[in-house]
Amino acid sequence: MTSSPTRRRTRTSGARRAGQGGAQVPVPPYATRQIPCYEVLNEEGLSLIEHNADTILEDIGIDFRDDPEALRLWRDAGADVEGERVRMPRGLCRQLIQASAPRQFTQHARNPARSIEIGGPHTAFVPAYGCPFVYDLDRGRRYGTLDDFHNFVKLAYQSPSLHHSGGTICEPVDLPVNKRHFDMLYAHMTYSDKCFMGSVTHPERAQDTVDMARILFGDRWLDPDTGQPRTCVISLINANSPMTFDATMLGAAKVYARHHQACIITPFILAGAMSPVTVAGTAAQTLAEAMAGLAFVQLVNPGAPVVLGSFASSMSMQSGAPTFGTPEPALVLYVMAQLARRLGVPFRSGGSLTAAKLPDAQAASESANTLLPTTLGGVNFALHAAGWLEGGLAMGYEKFVMDTDQAAMMQTLLKGVDLSENGQALDAIREVGPGKHFLGCAHTQANFRTAFYLSPLTDNNSFEQWDADGRLDMAQRANARWKTLLAEYQAPVLDPAIDEALVTYMETRKASFPDSNL
Amino acid sequence: MTSSPTRRRTRTSGARRAGQGGAQVPVPPYATRQIPCYEVLNEEGLSLIEHNADTILEDIGIDFRDDPEALRLWRDAGADVEGERVRMPRGLCRQLIQASAPRQFTQHARNPARSIEIGGPHTAFVPAYGCPFVYDLDRGRRYGTLDDFHNFVKLAYQSPSLHHSGGTICEPVDLPVNKRHFDMLYAHMTYSDKCFMGSVTHPERAQDTVDMARILFGDRWLDPDTGQPRTCVISLINANSPMTFDATMLGAAKVYARHHQACIITPFILAGAMSPVTVAGTAAQTLAEAMAGLAFVQLVNPGAPVVLGSFASSMSMQSGAPTFGTPEPALVLYVMAQLARRLGVPFRSGGSLTAAKLPDAQAASESANTLLPTTLGGVNFALHAAGWLEGGLAMGYEKFVMDTDQAAMMQTLLKGVDLSENGQALDAIREVGPGKHFLGCAHTQANFRTAFYLSPLTDNNSFEQWDADGRLDMAQRANARWKTLLAEYQAPVLDPAIDEALVTYMETRKASFPDSNL
Repeated sequence: MTSSPTRRRTRTSGARRAGQGGAQVPVPPYATRQIPCYEVLNEEGLSLIEHNADTILEDIGIDFRDDPEALRLWRDAGADVEGERVRMPRGLCRQLIQASAPRQFTQHARNPARSIEIGGPHTAFVPAYGCPFVYDLDRGRRYGTLDDFHNFVKLAYQSPSLHHSGGTICEPVDLPVNKRHFDMLYAHMTYSDKCFMGSVTHPERAQDTVDMARILFGDRWLDPDTGQPRTCVISLINANSPMTFDATMLGAAKVYARHHQACIITPFILAGAMSPVTVAGTAAQTLAEAMAGLAFVQLVNPGAPVVLGSFASSMSMQSGAPTFGTPEPALVLYVMAQLARRLGVPFRSGGSLTAAKLPDAQAASESANTLLPTTLGGVNFALHAAGWLEGGLAMGYEKFVMDTDQAAMMQTLLKGVDLSENGQALDAIREVGPGKHFLGCAHTQANFRTAFYLSPLTDNNSFEQWDADGRLDMAQRANARWKTLLAEYQAPVLDPAIDEALVTYMETRKASFPDSNL
Repeated sequence: MTSSPTRRRTRTSGARRAGQGGAQVPVPPYATRQIPCYEVLNEEGLSLIEHNADTILEDIGIDFRDDPEALRLWRDAGADVEGERVRMPRGLCRQLIQASAPRQFTQHARNPARSIEIGGPHTAFVPAYGCPFVYDLDRGRRYGTLDDFHNFVKLAYQSPSLHHSGGTICEPVDLPVNKRHFDMLYAHMTYSDKCFMGSVTHPERAQDTVDMARILFGDRWLDPDTGQPRTCVISLINANSPMTFDATMLGAAKVYARHHQACIITPFILAGAMSPVTVAGTAAQTLAEAMAGLAFVQLVNPGAPVVLGSFASSMSMQSGAPTFGTPEPALVLYVMAQLARRLGVPFRSGGSLTAAKLPDAQAASESANTLLPTTLGGVNFALHAAGWLEGGLAMGYEKFVMDTDQAAMMQTLLKGVDLSENGQALDAIREVGPGKHFLGCAHTQANFRTAFYLSPLTDNNSFEQWDADGRLDMAQRANARWKTLLAEYQAPVLDPAIDEALVTYMETRKASFPDSNL
């Protein structure tokens, strides 16, 4: 515990007095694409990879470790179970998924205006996840703390281009491993009113997530039409590639599925180590593993919302280190997005990935080379869209605001080309004519302010002006930006009774078992 | 004159002794795409913009300034000429272009192994063009000199991902304006054996370009089959947007067209100033201006090779400054690439554009947000692919090598997904099986070295290793890289008689008129 419930209550009260804060600016709660997806493979190529995925499932199989219930479910569904190895007849997984998994679903936020659609033409940009370290220009790299965690939840809340509060944005290593999920969940629930992610490090922590969400959503937890819980939590269930799911992830998935909360089934692959060194091989294996996980969730609770995830890095041939922003992972992303659409489930991949240790040109180009494929390929849930540094080991403050700027740009791109009469602007061209300029014409005056994306971070001034302004680079401007944002932060309103109930739940649970770092 | 012919000869002899230098590594002379182009508009949208372009040509017209011959050619072709305003009946320009302009052509290099195909599925990456300043980390920003020009020609020659030596890479401002084209051409011809661009600042300088190229190519200048000159020079003919061509550009275009040398007709547009602030308006105007220029070249010499160019920036609503790497220019690029393909001519656009003053994260993300659309959109001639800083005002040494790295990555992307049996890698997945790793398997061993793009500039090491290595950022590593490259440079072999003839031509011409800075 780093702060008492009393201090928490004071902060929340302060936030209530201050009003809606960042919620004052109306922004779309998620992006909806009006441009086509980029498709790198044709029908023949896609069929080949689907065939290979089925071959992997049928001939090689997937290990479901230390979970007798999972094996029983698979046996009952018609799979061949030998020890912990499950071999699925060709087509079984696809059939199970397509029989009950929703093509698109709503993740509800406690502020209904911030609920998001996951799937179809929609994209949500989501902060990075799972970083043990944090980085900023002033203090360098250090272990993350709960204070850092709070800061990033605030920054995500304040960023209109982020549609989600994320999950384990950074690890609050100042808290015991077996209790930090309470404080992370409480931060998402109180410092933000956007959607958030649940704990997956133990089935009990998944259950704590569900229980706290039920408190947070109160009357809105159950959908009166279906009598089922609304989907208020989404969680990251990674395969232990190659071709293995472990009991921790399976246990968490079962808790979420049974409560109708969403699971993102993601084979986490450093290609060359956990999959073959080729795009087509990595895609086939990713599809096989993901389909096994998605089908498993449907066996646990048919109709539970799922997302097909793909995380694939390339590898340095010099050191074996994972590399990001390279062409091969982009190709895997494009292929997997197509395969997810054919399967008929939402897709998670990409983000703003980099191996860079600081927010320099390497970080920026690697991130752009991931985020643009994320956008063009048709990712629905863009995890790791802000903050990621150092292969996911560090969450960067400057990188975070730089990435939110890029995410905003991508959302302009997704709107595509305005072909309305105003967009065609023929009258403007007529009015101006050859050899004149458009700066003063009526059409320019009418459209000037919204015509072009304007970054709050780039410097487009003359060299002389930039020189006079102190010759700041992008990272230095970003450093000023996140400090301004945090200084301006105002928390969203939360019913004090709910806040009280959350704190009581959390304190009671924390007191019920000893601290541990397992 | 900064160096005597004697010194030049000495340098060239030294190069001969050293052999082929950078030519030792066999690399493809240009990229050929094996992935689809990204198409942002459907048939209906494209037809609408084509219709609007024809409306601009028919109703508003294009000014051809100070060139009576141009007006006569247009009148003879059936256009309505009123003063210098030329209005083309709907469809005339398209008809003229499609009747004679080649869909694809070869630009010959003095080293035949480096000749490139322009058009179709091919892409050539070309250095930035026209920068008055240069920038490096050590000396900061300063005016470019002939020494800088030589350095960039050498660096382009040494970069396998650049297929071209470019043109006015930076302005050698230490030479008089009316004579610097000689030294730039001589540098391209002797320090490199890749294709190059011609002078367009005066029709006489275009003629000098043709005359020097004829000396350089000697027996290869004429194609024995057609009796026509081979296309050995490509040059940048900008429209003076909106809807104007001036006598300088028209004069240069006529010289090149009559000698069957290639012209890139490029409306140069800062949207909001030289075109409407919308994507569809800018695209229609670009298409109209470009079609007028392309058709003009076909009137001058039917069959002369041409390229449809598009350069469009967005604008800062705060300052009116051009902005780069934003979504709107990317959309213009995608649309124009589609329109060029429908017209049936090669397409030039994009590059690695940025408004940043130094090679920081802004430079990297803006460049990536231009270069990836360049690659996916289907650009054939990617001018400005290396070095561009500060909206084209400065050529950066570090930026140059960073950009060549990105260009190399794009060429891996263009190769697409290997769907061969080795690419599918099913045997590897079978061999390894669930829960194991792929590092040691036969397939990984066989494919490891070529499997993933490996950047010479990124740092993928652990934080600790990076720390021990001196905590260098991307720009600092790039600084070391260009110095190493220049230290290792070896000039390609050139027949001393040709070198002698080039020097004689240049010296004689230079002596025939006084220096001037016009």
